[in-house]
Amino acid sequence: MADDKKMVEAITSMQEDFAQWYTDIVIKAELIDYSSVKGCMVIKPAGYAIWELIQKQLDERFKATGVENVYMPMFIPESLLEREKDHVEGFAPEVAWVTHGGLEPLEERLCVRPTSETLFCDLYRNIVHSYRDLPKVYNQWCSVVRWEKTTRPFLRSREFLWQEGHTAHATAEEAEARTEQMLNLYADFCEQVLAMPVVRGRKTDKEKFAGAEATYTIEALMHDGKALQSGTSHNFGDGFAKAFDIQYTDKDNKLHHVYQTSWGMTTRLIGAIIMVHGDDSGLKLPPMVAPVQTVIIPIMQNKEGVLDKANEIKEKLIAAGVRVKLDDTDKRPGFKFSEQEMRGFPTRIEIGPKDIEAGTCVVVRRDTREKIVVAIDEVAVKLPEILADIQKSMLETAREHRDAHTYSAVTYDEFVDTINNKPGFVKAMWCGDVACENKIKEDTTATSRCMPFAQEKLSDKCICCGKPAKSMVYWGKAY
Amino acid sequence: MADDKKMVEAITSMQEDFAQWYTDIVIKAELIDYSSVKGCMVIKPAGYAIWELIQKQLDERFKATGVENVYMPMFIPESLLEREKDHVEGFAPEVAWVTHGGLEPLEERLCVRPTSETLFCDLYRNIVHSYRDLPKVYNQWCSVVRWEKTTRPFLRSREFLWQEGHTAHATAEEAEARTEQMLNLYADFCEQVLAMPVVRGRKTDKEKFAGAEATYTIEALMHDGKALQSGTSHNFGDGFAKAFDIQYTDKDNKLHHVYQTSWGMTTRLIGAIIMVHGDDSGLKLPPMVAPVQTVIIPIMQNKEGVLDKANEIKEKLIAAGVRVKLDDTDKRPGFKFSEQEMRGFPTRIEIGPKDIEAGTCVVVRRDTREKIVVAIDEVAVKLPEILADIQKSMLETAREHRDAHTYSAVTYDEFVDTINNKPGFVKAMWCGDVACENKIKEDTTATSRCMPFAQEKLSDKCICCGKPAKSMVYWGKAY
Repeated sequence: MADDKKMVEAITSMQEDFAQWYTDIVIKAELIDYSSVKGCMVIKPAGYAIWELIQKQLDERFKATGVENVYMPMFIPESLLEREKDHVEGFAPEVAWVTHGGLEPLEERLCVRPTSETLFCDLYRNIVHSYRDLPKVYNQWCSVVRWEKTTRPFLRSREFLWQEGHTAHATAEEAEARTEQMLNLYADFCEQVLAMPVVRGRKTDKEKFAGAEATYTIEALMHDGKALQSGTSHNFGDGFAKAFDIQYTDKDNKLHHVYQTSWGMTTRLIGAIIMVHGDDSGLKLPPMVAPVQTVIIPIMQNKEGVLDKANEIKEKLIAAGVRVKLDDTDKRPGFKFSEQEMRGFPTRIEIGPKDIEAGTCVVVRRDTREKIVVAIDEVAVKLPEILADIQKSMLETAREHRDAHTYSAVTYDEFVDTINNKPGFVKAMWCGDVACENKIKEDTTATSRCMPFAQEKLSDKCICCGKPAKSMVYWGKAY
Repeated sequence: MADDKKMVEAITSMQEDFAQWYTDIVIKAELIDYSSVKGCMVIKPAGYAIWELIQKQLDERFKATGVENVYMPMFIPESLLEREKDHVEGFAPEVAWVTHGGLEPLEERLCVRPTSETLFCDLYRNIVHSYRDLPKVYNQWCSVVRWEKTTRPFLRSREFLWQEGHTAHATAEEAEARTEQMLNLYADFCEQVLAMPVVRGRKTDKEKFAGAEATYTIEALMHDGKALQSGTSHNFGDGFAKAFDIQYTDKDNKLHHVYQTSWGMTTRLIGAIIMVHGDDSGLKLPPMVAPVQTVIIPIMQNKEGVLDKANEIKEKLIAAGVRVKLDDTDKRPGFKFSEQEMRGFPTRIEIGPKDIEAGTCVVVRRDTREKIVVAIDEVAVKLPEILADIQKSMLETAREHRDAHTYSAVTYDEFVDTINNKPGFVKAMWCGDVACENKIKEDTTATSRCMPFAQEKLSDKCICCGKPAKSMVYWGKAY
């Protein structure tokens, strides 16, 4: 038992130190490694395989809505970045600058893209001429760089992987519809694939993207009660089009500026999966993004017939489309159990001589630890059902946790007391004035997460200044 | 007809100016666009979709051999790049340097990765301790930067997309086996998926990768008789392991250095597809990497029933797994034909009132222009057969062209005459001395492409100096 214990003891408990618990999982489940490049991480096979599954399923959903993938240069000339005033102010302080190519200094500095609005605008100016060229619904999968001061694996690093969609439309209505469509696509993806409930809403002007008219966001609640912005979708109106001179000739033969949007999700989602679902035994992966959905662990594997039967089960499951691994290494079963739990694989299958005699195997769920005896003949049918049930049940559990940690406040005292003492979202009314947002942040460190699409009227007055309220806001302390 | 003609006339003929023909296709088939970043290109949807198909099929072949995908930082600290002497000499003159992060100068310059050997070594030093940790067979899909002076779309650009595999092994034999395995995987992929025959061989010391003990290569012949290096696989021996101090404890409890390999293929393959298969009507895509395998073009589409039947065919083909597009725009059929040929889609299906009456449609092959009458009821069976035949026949055609442009020479005069007047490969014997390689390059601009695995003995003497020959070499003028 010594080894098994050692493996589990090495994770700090969530209660004791949530940040350390997170770091322990990220390292022990071998999702990342630190690198010699400060603030950048190596995404190891176990981490990258999750990203591949996210990418594949998200990309399929994109393409079903008409998205086309492209690849843009990773560099942006300084003069191009400066074309849109708000945008450059938002990003210039945190970009990495290339000043030399080979042995020669460059004539103009290039930044490594922090996001690619400016490059897409440059492209659209060249290729959009007529209403027949619209809409353009392009996306790219790439890495971006933001020179952050403090970094944490997946949540905030100087380089991260993401997708960025950039679209151009003939009308403001069409751009608004695409902005909302992609936000809803993100929210559905989080709920259906990552088993992660999110609040859909609009960012306040203070929190919106640099250069956007409106930013929509999905906000998720982590296990420690902190909020995590998990995806955003921006409506730019014709602001960028005017700054970059993107015009098309309409059917009426007149020139019009296009209307644009952009939207993105990142490897931060892997951090969200850890912090929404994980526990003190390690990671807990929703089956739809689990690179391994079940590990077959033979008991007394040196006994004749055990490994044969384990392989037979493996083949049945592969044929049924299950992502399966057989662990026939010489580690002891107890160690393998701990390892499967640490790595977050949704199920394990225990199979030993007694099971074989009975014609059964034991499926153990990672989420509930329930042990289910399954006839070997039926395992290819039953396991996919169990996985579907885990997927559903993980979403329900996360939703219950989120709902149990969502509070309302109608007075400022109540608000401050709740936000400081009860980790979670606090719903409260707001007048729309940035001064109140700033005061709340100063007093509590909480920020406005979003003005949810599903508005409720908790009172008539702003929680902070008492003036007439314009909207209900979700507040929270954030990563 | 004016429009159709205009579309075709806009491509320069191959005979007249091969370089301009290439550029015309790249732009007219909408594979790329130039960008405001000098030497970098935008890969547009039609180009990126080809890359996605290459990526998917290559990645599946990788994974079947045990490759695991990871993601490494895009930056390399200067001190890390400098650890292996030959490597830094090879790459330092052509890297882009980041000197500032946000508003602050960096303490140490970072280069944007031109290739990631140094980062993988840094990782392996941290994670390889015991023989149980070996082998490591990691790969990443990413972009890299090399500050080239002259650039051409896909063939040589300052930034390009690629995959780079980096492995670590316990023994020299295992590393050598992996080096050869990946080269053969590349060659099979080129032949089976890209319909592009390649010569498999070893690079001379002059042409090998900076820091490698041996570089293996696949060399393809373009339509103009120029050679294109299409993939390489390097055996590093323990050179990098010694420079980076990567050691493991073997079963004998002693420390040993690991043996390493790396191997890569790039978006250059798209350039190869264009130059191996294209013609004066445009691009010609092998069906396995064609984003659209057939375009349905309705004739007299306003007649009742025509579009319905076209849609019926489309649905049948989707169900049969064919990548199909229905072009029901208001352009004239002749224009659509030209467009399909320009974009290189392997077939088109013409369907009009007379065909519908006869219960048939006409499949036109892009490669041979053959028209095949197919019963509509059978189209879902016949079209995949036609596509398979096109795939096979494109490889045969390319192989015939390659073989017809591969020459031998046994005297220096004959060699110089052939290499200067007959575009293609010239096989000739070589003593192994770099002085002869240099002289040949000075006299003819040709370079040694490879020492093929399939050696022939054309004579006893080096073509250049007359000393005893060590190997037969493929020579060629290259991109």
